[in-house]
Amino acid sequence: MDIAERIETGLHMALHHSTSGRCPAKLAGALRHAVFPGGARIRPRLCLAVALACGDRHARAATAAAVAIELLHCASLVHDDMPCFDDAAVRRDKPTVHVAFGEEIALLTGDGLIVAAFETLARETMLTPALTAPLVATIATAVGSPHGLVAGQAWESEPDMHLGSYHQAKTASLFVGAVSAGAIAASGNPRDWIALAKALGAAYQVADDLYDTVGETGSMGKPAGQDQRNGKPNIVAQLGVEDTLRHLRKLVETAADNVPDCPGAESMKAMIRKEATRLMPAKLPASAA
Amino acid sequence: MDIAERIETGLHMALHHSTSGRCPAKLAGALRHAVFPGGARIRPRLCLAVALACGDRHARAATAAAVAIELLHCASLVHDDMPCFDDAAVRRDKPTVHVAFGEEIALLTGDGLIVAAFETLARETMLTPALTAPLVATIATAVGSPHGLVAGQAWESEPDMHLGSYHQAKTASLFVGAVSAGAIAASGNPRDWIALAKALGAAYQVADDLYDTVGETGSMGKPAGQDQRNGKPNIVAQLGVEDTLRHLRKLVETAADNVPDCPGAESMKAMIRKEATRLMPAKLPASAA
Repeated sequence: MDIAERIETGLHMALHHSTSGRCPAKLAGALRHAVFPGGARIRPRLCLAVALACGDRHARAATAAAVAIELLHCASLVHDDMPCFDDAAVRRDKPTVHVAFGEEIALLTGDGLIVAAFETLARETMLTPALTAPLVATIATAVGSPHGLVAGQAWESEPDMHLGSYHQAKTASLFVGAVSAGAIAASGNPRDWIALAKALGAAYQVADDLYDTVGETGSMGKPAGQDQRNGKPNIVAQLGVEDTLRHLRKLVETAADNVPDCPGAESMKAMIRKEATRLMPAKLPASAA
Repeated sequence: MDIAERIETGLHMALHHSTSGRCPAKLAGALRHAVFPGGARIRPRLCLAVALACGDRHARAATAAAVAIELLHCASLVHDDMPCFDDAAVRRDKPTVHVAFGEEIALLTGDGLIVAAFETLARETMLTPALTAPLVATIATAVGSPHGLVAGQAWESEPDMHLGSYHQAKTASLFVGAVSAGAIAASGNPRDWIALAKALGAAYQVADDLYDTVGETGSMGKPAGQDQRNGKPNIVAQLGVEDTLRHLRKLVETAADNVPDCPGAESMKAMIRKEATRLMPAKLPASAA
């Protein structure tokens, strides 16, 4: 199985567990709606790419980590789209979960996906028990408080936002979690991958700001113009389109330069550079193209 | 340390981790508000009582399980109180989290507490790795979908509610999770404790319905009359106060009768019967007292 197949098969298995038996019908529908069809699956692909680069010693645990990370990412999108945050009507060309199923089901869908992520990690590492606690702890740190996704989102409610902590927590943390979990599952050293993850996380943040500005639906499946409407910080407003693009290219090169020595280093570098072409909005002002 | 001390110390440690460093101030305040001061801490006390009855072989893991269960219970209260569900203004004599900190922080507080629960389990079982996956899986099953708390709450959005599945998922599942986790942490057999947990879970559900009817704030810290206002099923409307009380006493006896043979069986039975007196509302119609 290639990386994409491992991720989709793993997600289907996880959702099968969460929606089986006497599951309330709306919740089951909403859980599937939130996860399928997916976006670019960037974070789980990164997680598995790192596991493969480190030798993929415990493939089942690595797949579980990738699946958990994507479930948590989907959970954060469902909750972020809700009326008390972005009040978004569309995600990945579909109605958002609260629009399709109601606010109460959207709230529970996010909760259910968070729980399913940790349940998947536990179920799939029963036979590699030394990996369970490190994987659960690493991934929980990436999504929780004080330094993960939850904290990142909470910075938006502070009168004095600390911009560095905000971006670190809201975007970089899950990239760091993805590479760390991939390395742990393959008995590699997670620390070797942090610099790469931070640069790549920053690149995605910048790309997302660019998409929002130039008027395309970006890698997150979020319609354009939402940041300005919601008063969120956007780097393009600060640097302009051309300097933002230059910054983005530099971040991708930094990520590729920071692939550590490992059996799969060269293919990892190639993957990152290829990924970078996905990041560039197709529609760009002529001067910046 | 006695049971109550182990729980409060463990909760303080977990909250310390989640609110340390550069945690956004409102999120940190809301996380503490949701957990302290607590309610009766019924589920974590039950978890530790079972662990002690089984010999408490891995005390640190048992405390972590109890703490995780209480964090998840608190998370469910924060989300259930939100405007799209019960729209409750008061919990445990304080403003609810969304009233005190806003809806967006309440949503994140619930999410953060769910993540903190699993993070605590991982952190505290690093030295007993054989316990991590079984504890995470057992507790996730109790709170997730299709049979846990999340599914229980989702039944309220179904046009045809399956009442048995609703009560099983919304109340009994976390009691089952609490006894199972306590047994697992002490190398006992979780299956031996299921009948007790189901009876006790049902007793708390009935007691809560009684409190709601007779006009007292019950063990959940929820003001009276809310079920009727929100159109939720309530057993007192079906049986009347006297028969409901009789049913409640029977459930507590069933719980005590189902304590399995173990070193601490007698003190466990005594604890359950003592607990039962807490369950009875002080204000009862004269005919039912």
